[in-house]
Amino acid sequence: MNNKKQHRNAMKSWSEVATRLVDVAMGRQPADLVVRNGRWVNVHSGEIIPGTDLAIVEGRFAYCGSDASHAIGEKTKVVDARGRYLVPGLCDAHMHVESGMVTVTEFCRAVIPHGTTSMFIDPHEIANVLGLEGVRLMHDEALAQPVNVFVQMPSCVPSAPGLENAGASLGPDDVADAMQWENIIGLGEVMNFPGVAGNDGTMVGEIAATVNAGKTVGGHYASPELGRAFHGYVAGGAEDDHEGTRMEDAIARVRQGMKAMLRLGSAWYDVASQIKAVTEQGLDPRNFILCTDDSHSGTLVNEGHMDRVVRHAIAQGLAPVTAIQMATINTAEHFRLQRELGSIAPGRRADLLIVSDLASLQIDEVYGRGVRLAQSGKLEADMPAYPYPSSARDTVRMGKTLQKSDFDIPAPEGSRSVKARVIGVIENQAPTRALTAELGVAKGIVSMDRRNDVCQIALVERHRGTGAVTNGFVSGFGYTQDCAMASTVAHDSHHMIVVGTNKEDMAIAANRLGEVGGGVVMISRGKELALVEMPIAGLMSEERAEIVAEKASRLAEAMRDMGCTLNNAYMQHSLLALVVIPELRISDIGLIDVTRFEKVDLFLDD
Amino acid sequence: MNNKKQHRNAMKSWSEVATRLVDVAMGRQPADLVVRNGRWVNVHSGEIIPGTDLAIVEGRFAYCGSDASHAIGEKTKVVDARGRYLVPGLCDAHMHVESGMVTVTEFCRAVIPHGTTSMFIDPHEIANVLGLEGVRLMHDEALAQPVNVFVQMPSCVPSAPGLENAGASLGPDDVADAMQWENIIGLGEVMNFPGVAGNDGTMVGEIAATVNAGKTVGGHYASPELGRAFHGYVAGGAEDDHEGTRMEDAIARVRQGMKAMLRLGSAWYDVASQIKAVTEQGLDPRNFILCTDDSHSGTLVNEGHMDRVVRHAIAQGLAPVTAIQMATINTAEHFRLQRELGSIAPGRRADLLIVSDLASLQIDEVYGRGVRLAQSGKLEADMPAYPYPSSARDTVRMGKTLQKSDFDIPAPEGSRSVKARVIGVIENQAPTRALTAELGVAKGIVSMDRRNDVCQIALVERHRGTGAVTNGFVSGFGYTQDCAMASTVAHDSHHMIVVGTNKEDMAIAANRLGEVGGGVVMISRGKELALVEMPIAGLMSEERAEIVAEKASRLAEAMRDMGCTLNNAYMQHSLLALVVIPELRISDIGLIDVTRFEKVDLFLDD
Repeated sequence: MNNKKQHRNAMKSWSEVATRLVDVAMGRQPADLVVRNGRWVNVHSGEIIPGTDLAIVEGRFAYCGSDASHAIGEKTKVVDARGRYLVPGLCDAHMHVESGMVTVTEFCRAVIPHGTTSMFIDPHEIANVLGLEGVRLMHDEALAQPVNVFVQMPSCVPSAPGLENAGASLGPDDVADAMQWENIIGLGEVMNFPGVAGNDGTMVGEIAATVNAGKTVGGHYASPELGRAFHGYVAGGAEDDHEGTRMEDAIARVRQGMKAMLRLGSAWYDVASQIKAVTEQGLDPRNFILCTDDSHSGTLVNEGHMDRVVRHAIAQGLAPVTAIQMATINTAEHFRLQRELGSIAPGRRADLLIVSDLASLQIDEVYGRGVRLAQSGKLEADMPAYPYPSSARDTVRMGKTLQKSDFDIPAPEGSRSVKARVIGVIENQAPTRALTAELGVAKGIVSMDRRNDVCQIALVERHRGTGAVTNGFVSGFGYTQDCAMASTVAHDSHHMIVVGTNKEDMAIAANRLGEVGGGVVMISRGKELALVEMPIAGLMSEERAEIVAEKASRLAEAMRDMGCTLNNAYMQHSLLALVVIPELRISDIGLIDVTRFEKVDLFLDD
Repeated sequence: MNNKKQHRNAMKSWSEVATRLVDVAMGRQPADLVVRNGRWVNVHSGEIIPGTDLAIVEGRFAYCGSDASHAIGEKTKVVDARGRYLVPGLCDAHMHVESGMVTVTEFCRAVIPHGTTSMFIDPHEIANVLGLEGVRLMHDEALAQPVNVFVQMPSCVPSAPGLENAGASLGPDDVADAMQWENIIGLGEVMNFPGVAGNDGTMVGEIAATVNAGKTVGGHYASPELGRAFHGYVAGGAEDDHEGTRMEDAIARVRQGMKAMLRLGSAWYDVASQIKAVTEQGLDPRNFILCTDDSHSGTLVNEGHMDRVVRHAIAQGLAPVTAIQMATINTAEHFRLQRELGSIAPGRRADLLIVSDLASLQIDEVYGRGVRLAQSGKLEADMPAYPYPSSARDTVRMGKTLQKSDFDIPAPEGSRSVKARVIGVIENQAPTRALTAELGVAKGIVSMDRRNDVCQIALVERHRGTGAVTNGFVSGFGYTQDCAMASTVAHDSHHMIVVGTNKEDMAIAANRLGEVGGGVVMISRGKELALVEMPIAGLMSEERAEIVAEKASRLAEAMRDMGCTLNNAYMQHSLLALVVIPELRISDIGLIDVTRFEKVDLFLDD
């Protein structure tokens, strides 16, 4: 499947270069690069050691000590650190590239200047669209990067079997297969926590395949309940969890031998509360790991990535070395990579930050595998776009051009008004409310009620080209104008969600996304107010993160112009088909009651 | 090679029993064993958590929390911990079973009541006698134990290629082969540190084979030099080291990303000095690990094993939980076994100590894989002797019955006296001195000089039955009587060393060991004063540790009776052929100057 060998960023194995490392350490061969006179932030000992020299060859540290002058030859590049801090490159222990709406390459381009040199990505979204092939594409793109991008095999595709039909379905055999790929580091967040506690065969099989391959099982226990259900989940084998939000969540996980992954994403703020387990309760910090989970392009461009998380952790009162351990060696050990990365020590990949102030993590230079990739926040690496095949592009298959009438909702025969179920969006929360509304009927078709903020939502099947449209009602966006917004980012099945106050605009918006191969668009009275094209699987743009961020910002503005007052309006839109979070959602099979995990009728009997 | 399947102590893999663990945690199935109301010594969080219940099934922890009553069924055994501490079983991170002069089975029998439930053994001695087959025998015997015994593949067999001929020779291909055996955990102490720093092909190949198999490379850097030679060794890939003796040794190793293994053996006292790196310098304790390396049977019987080491570490000022981490989770993580053992947490092997006082580590009960193995210091486990094949027994092959005359040392023709090289034993130290002595000649044969404490030493070839005897002189034992002591424990080649003041006794002693298949014997004027039979490879007894300890004690007494005043007289005897430690040693090829690594003549020219 991998026909992109030419794009591979080769890194020789430790064994292949061991004798060269020894030769450089012993002064028998010159290093490629020597960094002199730095303050070694030693994540093994917990010390900061001034007057440290580093000698690097073949992209790995060969010597770390007080004097590397013996490793300097005629062609050795010498960098004077002038007493600045030498920090291992930062690791993001769990994240979804797709959340940035950009490709792996563009994500790396955006985060390298922020000091991220290792990422553990879970391509769960593309897997829902393209299945194992999608995972393989991102796996191969990951290998082309000048930094370390490891891939977690998605575990729950589809997220809600029986309640939705995603673009693909993965199971234990796929997991066992993927575990043999060189760049697969483990199993991605096992979200089906009731399934694990219930010994669901798919979950059991996928976890066993991962454990048998000696790889790491990622957890995702999204519940505040720390009783029996939690213990059942832990016994099932998950080794980490990033869904904790309270101090007691972190403590409970660490006690059970899991890593508490503390998350600071664009919309996740779970570090400050949980880090108190260390700063107030004195727990051993070695089992705490930092991650982002989901970062929007705007966050990457304006606020940063793992540097932002580490800075935030330090601001909560962690010693800088401790916070840095949580984004370097702790992560490496968790993924059994401590011999490869996560510290500045002989044999490890020379992923290195030169930092002028530790508490504020002011990153002057970023090295990946011994090569300077960024300086003063500016990328220097040459990072060609990754050539995605057409199979990853033509993924918005609607089967037909939609008409206004496709969004008509016929009333039960003879009725003059109806009592309908309405998905109620809750400000700043992922769960929805199951509301009801009395709606009028005109010519046999149910009407929206803009005054009471009830407009239409449609899920347009887009994986198999069936032309099917599931219609329903939604409240909470507050649109006051004629408009429609469509998105092919529609967690987790990633069909197309269209929300509108005007059926003609709904049809235009949907067709527009079919035309550009996916993305998000806002139409008002036939006019395109904003568009973010995402031609890769309908999930990712091929453009730079700053361009995507700007387009996304225009989209948010358009939503506000149409009357929407929600804080994260686009995210709310994209989560309306997430049939694993209560209470009411929409899927390709209909309206889903996610308190009872079953399909329900749009209309209630009186 | 493994025809002992019936002796295998089977432990199902985590994957095989995962659903049962979940069922017990959820209360759907009863546990085999529930321990109630203990103080959970949590090596993950660093806390001690009172009121903890544990539920165990299939030899693994299924539930660890505040109330396991839901896991108690009719047949569940329930143990009330009555508020005592629940401590993970202790791990010995590096040790040689052969040092106890007993088999793996007998070693386990001796140490289980002391709380050791995991051992990482390096069968370096048997490998020098029987090669890969010897390693395999101990590997298979290890699998028969009710506790966890992992095997490190010996890396340096022979220890000094070119200076000695051991019973076998191992290289990279053997290492690559052994890495596929289920119970091989890594490469044993890479002692040839100049070889590593010099890119010696055998060392490079063995380390690469280990790294490529994803296993742990054990180190052994026995030098106080922390400059370039140390850095060269580190770059070569060793991941731990137990040869440090000073605080600066421990600090240097941890900074380089190695684990500092602190050793308290029968004759090693390296914890107190090095632990100051933590207690005084504040280094992160996670990279410190405790081990014994070498324990004599007497130590095991009279003082203990890992419990003794942990107690000693606590007495140096470590918090008990920190000391316990160094003998549990730190060790498990180092060997990539953190999912299997080293903590009390779901999924891990239920290796558990019930401890009534933590600082003094008073161990009341010992459980291995959920089965009580010992109580109040008494073994309860049924541990049948392991049936070693005859190939492991008939290893003392002298080729002939030795005569008194085999120990004659002819003087250079016509000389009336000679100036001879003499191996000088130094009290309490492993190195020897290269001494010289003027010795008389009678009938063309050089005489010993008992008054000046110069007696004879002979290395008797015993692997290939060549009948060859290498004769020389030794000083320092202080024997005042007619006597001879012979030992087939003769590090590292394990030929036979005979030291005597009387050649007739020397012949009798050597022949006696040939008769019993090896061991140690002291003869005086034809009378056997003491004998420790070691029929397994001439290195190990099949008797109980307490019997071996008693026999060894009688041997020490016999040496004293013969006039010897050395503290560790038997150890000094057994190290005289260790041709890797300066200054002068004996091997099957002659007298070896270990400052220049070359053979020298017995006589000096005047």
